[in-house]
Amino acid sequence: MLTRIDHVGIACTSLDAAIERYEGVFGLKVVSRETNSEQGVREAMLVVSGEPSASYVQLLEPLADDTPVGKFLAKRGEGVHHVGYAVEDVTAALETIGDRGVRLVDSRPRHGSMGASIAFLHPGDLGGVLTELVQPADVGKSL
Amino acid sequence: MLTRIDHVGIACTSLDAAIERYEGVFGLKVVSRETNSEQGVREAMLVVSGEPSASYVQLLEPLADDTPVGKFLAKRGEGVHHVGYAVEDVTAALETIGDRGVRLVDSRPRHGSMGASIAFLHPGDLGGVLTELVQPADVGKSL
Repeated sequence: MLTRIDHVGIACTSLDAAIERYEGVFGLKVVSRETNSEQGVREAMLVVSGEPSASYVQLLEPLADDTPVGKFLAKRGEGVHHVGYAVEDVTAALETIGDRGVRLVDSRPRHGSMGASIAFLHPGDLGGVLTELVQPADVGKSL
Repeated sequence: MLTRIDHVGIACTSLDAAIERYEGVFGLKVVSRETNSEQGVREAMLVVSGEPSASYVQLLEPLADDTPVGKFLAKRGEGVHHVGYAVEDVTAALETIGDRGVRLVDSRPRHGSMGASIAFLHPGDLGGVLTELVQPADVGKSL
């Protein structure tokens, strides 16, 4: 069902400072910058490994204190916010995982980074890890 | 320098329960179980994607409360403990990263899962993320 670790989502107080750090220390390159109002974040994707099994560091800065990432930062400080795994079919995966007793944060897919369809699973049923399923925009190329 | 996300390390109170969950929900398979006395953990590696770009979920149960993972659980509860990235040469990567101003938890590589040489970098210099560098045992095969 899971085809790879798609990304690690890291909450940060300053997106620019975090990008500078990850570029400067590891030589990673930003391949996408977006603002996702629905999720309340400004974000950047930095590629770790390329096609055909791309994986990313996703840096997330909250748009406001009362967003999910804003609340996470207030409670826990900077650090890993979630883990994203690639799937071939996010709708089918959600149905299977829901049937297996995991609470779904998103019962239907929504828009994620770089045109992907994504859905979150409840951390309370997955060892404290907020878990994201990612169906990339162009499955044929990305998987 | 980083060639892929090698693994996500997840701290859990019960290794058996966590394995059952990740196997049952996602169909992941355990490929290695080890006890690492030096790090104070019992652990399992569950493969997410296979060769040539293997990545894993690493589940970690502390051997005692006064171990690093035991203290993490007491403070933060279950969740992502660290992120591991593959490198071709962990000694060279450590030197480069140290020169770039990141504090090294391990100034020299030590033994990690499945025969890998590993070293940890200080979370305080990497956006709150305890970061591990992993040089797999058989680089020719694993990268």
